[in-house]
Amino acid sequence: MGKCRNHPDRETHYLCSKHNVYMCEECLKCNDPELYCKFRSACPIWYMERRKKRWEKEQRAEESIKKCKVTFEPENKEIEMRRESTLLDAAREADVHINASCNGKGSCGKCKLIVESGDIKSEPTALLSTREKEKHYVLACQTRVFGNVTARIPDEAIERTLKVAGMGEEATTRLKGLVKDIRPMLVDIPLELEPPTLDDSVSDLDRLNRGLKKSGCCIADFTVGINVIRQLSAAMRDKNWKVTASVIRRNGTNHIVAVTPGNGQAASLGLAIDVGTTSIVVYLVDMMDGSILAATSGHNQQAACGDDVINRIVCAEKDGVAKLSRMALATINNLISEALAVVNADKNQIKNVVISGNTTMTHLLLKIEPKYIRRDPYIPTISEFPVLQAADIGIKANPVAAVFIMPDPASYVGGDIVSGLLFAGFHRTNLMTLFIDVGTNGEIVLGNREWLMTASCSAGPAFEGGGIRWGMRAEEGAIDKVSIDPETFEPVFSTIGNAQPRGICGSGMIDLISEMMQTGVIGQNGKFKIDSSHPRMKLDGEDLAYILAFANQTPMEEDIVFTEIDIHSLILSKGAVYSGFMVLLKQSGLDFSAIDQVLISGGFGRYLNIDKAVTIGLLPDIDRAKFKYLGNSSIAGAYMALLSDGYRNEVREISQKMTYIDFSSNSQFMDEFTSALFLPHTNMNEFPSVHIH
Amino acid sequence: MGKCRNHPDRETHYLCSKHNVYMCEECLKCNDPELYCKFRSACPIWYMERRKKRWEKEQRAEESIKKCKVTFEPENKEIEMRRESTLLDAAREADVHINASCNGKGSCGKCKLIVESGDIKSEPTALLSTREKEKHYVLACQTRVFGNVTARIPDEAIERTLKVAGMGEEATTRLKGLVKDIRPMLVDIPLELEPPTLDDSVSDLDRLNRGLKKSGCCIADFTVGINVIRQLSAAMRDKNWKVTASVIRRNGTNHIVAVTPGNGQAASLGLAIDVGTTSIVVYLVDMMDGSILAATSGHNQQAACGDDVINRIVCAEKDGVAKLSRMALATINNLISEALAVVNADKNQIKNVVISGNTTMTHLLLKIEPKYIRRDPYIPTISEFPVLQAADIGIKANPVAAVFIMPDPASYVGGDIVSGLLFAGFHRTNLMTLFIDVGTNGEIVLGNREWLMTASCSAGPAFEGGGIRWGMRAEEGAIDKVSIDPETFEPVFSTIGNAQPRGICGSGMIDLISEMMQTGVIGQNGKFKIDSSHPRMKLDGEDLAYILAFANQTPMEEDIVFTEIDIHSLILSKGAVYSGFMVLLKQSGLDFSAIDQVLISGGFGRYLNIDKAVTIGLLPDIDRAKFKYLGNSSIAGAYMALLSDGYRNEVREISQKMTYIDFSSNSQFMDEFTSALFLPHTNMNEFPSVHIH
Repeated sequence: MGKCRNHPDRETHYLCSKHNVYMCEECLKCNDPELYCKFRSACPIWYMERRKKRWEKEQRAEESIKKCKVTFEPENKEIEMRRESTLLDAAREADVHINASCNGKGSCGKCKLIVESGDIKSEPTALLSTREKEKHYVLACQTRVFGNVTARIPDEAIERTLKVAGMGEEATTRLKGLVKDIRPMLVDIPLELEPPTLDDSVSDLDRLNRGLKKSGCCIADFTVGINVIRQLSAAMRDKNWKVTASVIRRNGTNHIVAVTPGNGQAASLGLAIDVGTTSIVVYLVDMMDGSILAATSGHNQQAACGDDVINRIVCAEKDGVAKLSRMALATINNLISEALAVVNADKNQIKNVVISGNTTMTHLLLKIEPKYIRRDPYIPTISEFPVLQAADIGIKANPVAAVFIMPDPASYVGGDIVSGLLFAGFHRTNLMTLFIDVGTNGEIVLGNREWLMTASCSAGPAFEGGGIRWGMRAEEGAIDKVSIDPETFEPVFSTIGNAQPRGICGSGMIDLISEMMQTGVIGQNGKFKIDSSHPRMKLDGEDLAYILAFANQTPMEEDIVFTEIDIHSLILSKGAVYSGFMVLLKQSGLDFSAIDQVLISGGFGRYLNIDKAVTIGLLPDIDRAKFKYLGNSSIAGAYMALLSDGYRNEVREISQKMTYIDFSSNSQFMDEFTSALFLPHTNMNEFPSVHIH
Repeated sequence: MGKCRNHPDRETHYLCSKHNVYMCEECLKCNDPELYCKFRSACPIWYMERRKKRWEKEQRAEESIKKCKVTFEPENKEIEMRRESTLLDAAREADVHINASCNGKGSCGKCKLIVESGDIKSEPTALLSTREKEKHYVLACQTRVFGNVTARIPDEAIERTLKVAGMGEEATTRLKGLVKDIRPMLVDIPLELEPPTLDDSVSDLDRLNRGLKKSGCCIADFTVGINVIRQLSAAMRDKNWKVTASVIRRNGTNHIVAVTPGNGQAASLGLAIDVGTTSIVVYLVDMMDGSILAATSGHNQQAACGDDVINRIVCAEKDGVAKLSRMALATINNLISEALAVVNADKNQIKNVVISGNTTMTHLLLKIEPKYIRRDPYIPTISEFPVLQAADIGIKANPVAAVFIMPDPASYVGGDIVSGLLFAGFHRTNLMTLFIDVGTNGEIVLGNREWLMTASCSAGPAFEGGGIRWGMRAEEGAIDKVSIDPETFEPVFSTIGNAQPRGICGSGMIDLISEMMQTGVIGQNGKFKIDSSHPRMKLDGEDLAYILAFANQTPMEEDIVFTEIDIHSLILSKGAVYSGFMVLLKQSGLDFSAIDQVLISGGFGRYLNIDKAVTIGLLPDIDRAKFKYLGNSSIAGAYMALLSDGYRNEVREISQKMTYIDFSSNSQFMDEFTSALFLPHTNMNEFPSVHIH
C-alpha cells in the first residue's frame, strides 16, 4: 500500500515495480501518455504486484469489506466501487449518462435516481419532493453507497434524442449546394510512375516528386516525414509503381503524409464535427461531391462533469485535461462509428476533418490546458490552430487525416461562432447584422462585411433548462409552447413529440413568462400578482410557484411548477442577452433602428416564438421580418470549411477581424443589465409594441 | 513453447499473452517499435508467462541442458547463449567487438579468438596456421559452443584507436576559421513577453508570435505542433512571461519546436557526425563561436555485420534494418556521451546536428529499407532529406534538435562525398579537379564549379585491409611504410605508433608493391619473379608469399606475409580506381593533362606515398605538386554545414549538380579496367616517370 503519485491523498495498491511509484485506479485509467505512465492500465506491471501472496490476502480481505457493487437500471450496468463512493461517481465510472448540471455540488437537483435496493446514505436536500422521497428518489451526487446497491434512472430522466442537433434533411441538401469548388486539405493523388532504370536512377522520393509534378499538381515545395520515407520503397514497388500520394497543402507547402500502394483508391470521406458543450453532431461527407452520407448526434459525455464550460474547466483542473478529452472523444468516436456503419465504410477512408466548438471545448478536446480561460484576464492558449492530423488528437479516422480546427477568437467566443458566421455569410453582407447564439453562454456578434464586434454575455444555462426547477432541454416531453387564459389563468401547452410533459424547455419558458406577464399572473418585476390561493398556485418548498401541469398529467406523478426563483433566473438570462445587444450597439454608435437583420443560431431558436421573446425583453422590439433562424450554424460552417479551401481561409479572416468586448469588467454593461432586469425593460420606450395589461 | 512469429525456424518460450504470439529472444531485444511489439523486452507480459509453474519447470530443465555461458576476455563480458550458437553470435550479443569482415562466411579469417576453456566444435579452416591451432585459436564464426566457454580476444586483434578518424588539432582550428556567419538550423530566441490584460487578451500563442516578431526575427509564417501547444500556457507563465522559443527555419517557414520557461539559456551545442562504414567521428561544437569542444571517434558497431556496405544491406535484409540502425546509433550515442563528458554538458543542450555518411549508412541509420540500393538499377529511397529532429532518429541530443542529413546523390556516391566536396570548395573552384575518396568503395568526382561528374568504382576493401592475408586498418602496429633492398630483397619497414608489426595497412601495401615491382621481386603482371627458395619466400597454404616480418618480430609469433593473391587483390583495386579516372575523363572529353589538382580524401591518404601510388598505377602520373591530402573531409564538411545556412544550401546544390555515371554496366569501364590490371598499366605511355628495372 502506498500513496498515489498524483493524488497524495489516495491510498493505492498499484505499485509500478519498474519505476517504483504508486498510482491510484483513476490514474491507471487515464488515457493520456503525457500524464502518468505511458503504459497505463494496459501495463501488466501493475498487476504483477497483485500476485504477491500477502498483498492478495490483504486485497481479498479489503475487497470483501470495502467494495460495493452498484447496478444501474434499466441499462443493467454494473460497477465495483469503494465503500462511501457517491452514486454520481459510480455512474461516471460505469459510463451511465446522468445529467449533473452543477457537477456534483447538490444544487441543481438533476441527478435523480431511484434506489431500488441496497445500503445508502443521502445528505438531506430540498430538491426532492416528499412524494419523490417516498418513491426512494435520491440525488446521485448526495448519496453514498455502503453495500451493494441497485439504482434506477427514472424514466423521465433518460435522455431522449436531441431534436435540434442536426440540420434536417432539407437543410443538408441546401448545404450541399453551397460549395461549388471542392478543395479538401488532404488530397489523394493517384500516380503511375516510370519504373527506374540504370539511366534513370533518381531516388524513390525524387521519382515520386517527379510523378506529382507531372500529374499536374503544382507542387512547388514539399515536405515529407521520416515515417513516410521509411515505408516509401516498399509502397512504390508493391503495386508495380502505381501509388497514391496523400498530400496536405498548407502555407504554400505540400506535405506528403502517406504513400500507399496502388492508385485505384476507395472513396475519400470527410467529417464535419460540432463539439457542443451539451451535444455533439457529426456529419460524414463524401468528399467527391459533398453529399452528407450520414448525420449522427449525441450527448457530450463531459456532461457528467457539469453543464457549463466553467464546470468542465474546474473538472479538468481537478482530474486532468486528459479525462475531459477522453470523454468528448468517446462521444465523437461513437458518433463516427455510427455514421460509418450507415454507409459501411472504413475509418481509414476518412481523410479530412473539420472540428467546430467553443474555445473550452476545443482546448479540452486537444488536451490543451484550459486553466487560464476562466482566470482573469481570460486567455486561451491558442486561437488559430495549425492543421493537425487525426492521430494527434485521437479522432477515429485515417491517422494521417488532416484536421482543421475552427479558430477561437476569444476565451468566450469560439470556433462555433466563427463557423456560424461563415454559414450566415455575415462577413460578406452589407446588411447591419446582429447574430446571437443562446446556449449556456450567449454569444453576440454585431457588424457586417466591414467590421465585426463580439461579446459573450454569460446568459447562464436557464434557456437550456439549467437551474430551473423543471427545466430541461428541447427533448421529447418538453413543454415548448404555452398560452394562458387571461380569465381563468389556466394554461394550455404543447410538448415536443406530443409526449406527456416531463419539464419545460427554453422556448416554453419564454412563452410562459410572456403569457404570465400579459395575463397579469406576474408583474413586470417578475413577482406573482395573482392570489396565492388560486388552484394553479402552490408553495414549492418555500417558493411560491405556478402549477403548469398537475401530477396526474405527468409521467413522474409530480406537479410541474414554475417558481418565482425560476422567473428570476430567466430574467437574469434575458437581461444579460439584451444588455449585451445594447452595449455592442452603443460601443459602435448605433441603435436598434440601424439593424437590418437578426440571425438566431443554435437549437434554442428552433421552437422560439419571436413575438413572445420580444415581449419578455429578450429580443429587441423591431420588425419581426428581420429575425431569421439559422439552425445549427456551427455544423453548417464546419461542413463548408471541410469542402472548401476558400471557406477555410474565410474563417481565419473572420476570426482575425472580430473585436472582442469583455463584459466582465464593463461598467456600461452593468448599467444596462440593471435596467434590463424588468419585463420587458425599465425603459418601455424601447418596446413600443409590447402592451402590458 | 512455440515458434517465433518472425523466425518460424526458432523455438521460443516468450509468449505475449496479450497478442498471443511467440517471439524469440532476438525479436524481444529488437529496438524498433515498428517491427515486432512496441513494448519489446521491456514488456512484462513476456515474463509473466515464465511464472506459470509448468513452464518454469521446463525452462529450468531446458536451461540447464541448453544454455551455455560464454565469457569473453580480457573484457570479462559474459553472455548466456543457446547451445550450438557460434562464438561470433555470442560476441555480437555481448557487444564484444570482433572484426568480421566477411559477416560470418568463414572466408576472411579475421574473427580469431583463443578458446581458453570449454566445449566447442569448429569447422575446419585453412585460415588458421598450425601454430595458431596449437595455441587454441579458432574462427569465431566457424565455432559453436556446447557448454560454458571462455574465449580470449587475441592481443593483436584488439582494435586500437583509429589514427585517422578526426582532423587533428591544427585542422580543427583551421576549420573554425572557415565559417564567419554562424546560422544554425534551430535557433533559441529568448523573449520577455508582455503579460496579458483584459485589454490585451490575445491567445498565448499569438502573444508568443508577437514577441517573436518584436524580437526582430523576421517570422513571416510559422508552424507549431500540438505538443508545444499543450505545454505552452504553463511554459509562458512558469517564469513570469520570460520564455525561450526554439525555432527551426526551413523552406521559408519557421517551426516552433519548443517553448521553455526562462530566457537565460545554457550554451547551445551542436554535433557534426561522420558515419563511416568502418569508423564514426563526432565533433561537439559550441554553436556560439564554432569552437570544436570535443572530438571523439570509434568503430562502427555494424562492423560485426561485415566490412562493406553490401554485407550490411544483406544483414539488414536478414535481421531487419532496425538492428543495423541500433548498432550505428549505439556507437554514435557512446561517442556523444564521451564528448559531452569532456565539457560536462547535458544532451539537451545539443540542438543542432549534421550527419554525413554514405548512402547505405544514412539509410540504415534512419531505418530506411536499403534493399534496393544493392539491386539493379540501384535506387536509394531518398537523396535529399528533410530536416529531421533528434527524436525521429534516436540521436542522443535534445529530442527537438534539428538534424540535417547530407544529401545522397546516388546509391554509391553519398553524403560523405558531398560533404567532402563542400569542404574542398570543389563547387567554387575554376581549377579542373579530381577528387578521390578510397575506402571500401572508391568514389571519384571530376569537374569544377561548372560541372561535376561522379562515379563509384568498387575498389573493394583491400586498401583498408579487407581480403588481404595480413591486411589491417591504419591502426597501431600496422606496417605503413616499406622499402626493399634491391640487392638482398630484404625489407625495411616502419609501423604506426612504432609498435611491433601486427599487419599491413593500405599505404604499407602500396609501398610494398611499388618496391617489389621496382626491385624485381614481382613482375608487372604481379607474379613473383624471384627464386622461391629465397629466405624471404615461403608457401602460405598453397600460395607463394613474400615474408615481410618473421614470426620472432611479431607479437603473434607468426610470419607476416604478402601472397600473390594479395597482390592480385590490390591490382584489382588500384585498377578499378584508375579506370574510374579514365572513364570520367573520356566521358568529359579530357585527359590527365587537363587536371589542375587531385584531392585525396579519407583516412587512406594520410600515410600515402604519392610517388609509390603513381608507380603502381593507382594515381595518374602527373606533377606531384598537384596532389593534395584533405584528411577526413566528410566530418569537415559536416562541421561547416552545422554552422552555416549558406553551406547547407550549397551541399544541396552540389548534390543536385552531380552527374552520376554507373560503371556496373559500362563497357568502356570494363575495357579500361582490363588495361589497368598491370603494374602500373598496359599502356606505359601514361606513366612516363615510372621506370621499371
